[in-house]
Amino acid sequence: MRMQASVARRLFATARVARLATADAEGVPHLVPVTFAMDGEDVVSAVDAKPKTTAALRRLRNITANPRVSVLVDHYEEDWSRLWWVRADGHATVAHTDERAIAALTAKYPPYLRTPPAGPVVRIRITTWRGWSASSDVPTPDRFAGCPPYQR
Amino acid sequence: MRMQASVARRLFATARVARLATADAEGVPHLVPVTFAMDGEDVVSAVDAKPKTTAALRRLRNITANPRVSVLVDHYEEDWSRLWWVRADGHATVAHTDERAIAALTAKYPPYLRTPPAGPVVRIRITTWRGWSASSDVPTPDRFAGCPPYQR
Repeated sequence: MRMQASVARRLFATARVARLATADAEGVPHLVPVTFAMDGEDVVSAVDAKPKTTAALRRLRNITANPRVSVLVDHYEEDWSRLWWVRADGHATVAHTDERAIAALTAKYPPYLRTPPAGPVVRIRITTWRGWSASSDVPTPDRFAGCPPYQR
Repeated sequence: MRMQASVARRLFATARVARLATADAEGVPHLVPVTFAMDGEDVVSAVDAKPKTTAALRRLRNITANPRVSVLVDHYEEDWSRLWWVRADGHATVAHTDERAIAALTAKYPPYLRTPPAGPVVRIRITTWRGWSASSDVPTPDRFAGCPPYQR
């Protein structure tokens, strides 16, 4: 069932990984997992030192050609009554750097303390929060989802 | 580092959830988590009984307007040396039903034994397998990733 936008936003913010969908000028979609943080109402992400096959990343080219993006956090378990997801749709911009974004990312992810992301930075102004959960209970983040139940 | 396409495809096939990116005719991307199965070289997914807010799903409208899609499986851990992802890009079609797809989905997901997905079915002819892993070790599916180490 549909989630309140405020619940959706809160669950999204606690997730450790999201998926960023961009599309090029011809509408060909592209999908990549991203580490991300909230900066106020914006979702921010940065190109970092994780090895890439190319510096001219397709996500950045796509955003320059077409700023519409969609970002998804989802929660899977074999017990489908516990499924939920949150999607944030908005408009992205790419900046060479963005100190507030880098600070938010570094505060969230310990590996960034050692090697702060160099950028560029993707900043997404969210226009729509949409969330869904299989049950009417408000879902909670569960970092141990998927672990055998006796191990939780 | 880049993964061989055969490794990427095998890892993808073992995942329990993927994310499907579509885009409409104007190139606005849309993102949703999906249960899926392989049918030969195709990725198949179906609209099922998990509650939806609408029957006229945007993913289906988008595919009808623009068949290009991207599907992602990713693996996150706080130990970033174990990150990996696989992306399958291709062309999707929507069918009212598709017996082979329904059989593949039912074989993979026990809940579908009780309530087989009614459809429509999305069938994706994959044109490109692309995979990345943070380390040079070939990643392995790990259903307990993210569990406390002493609980594995």
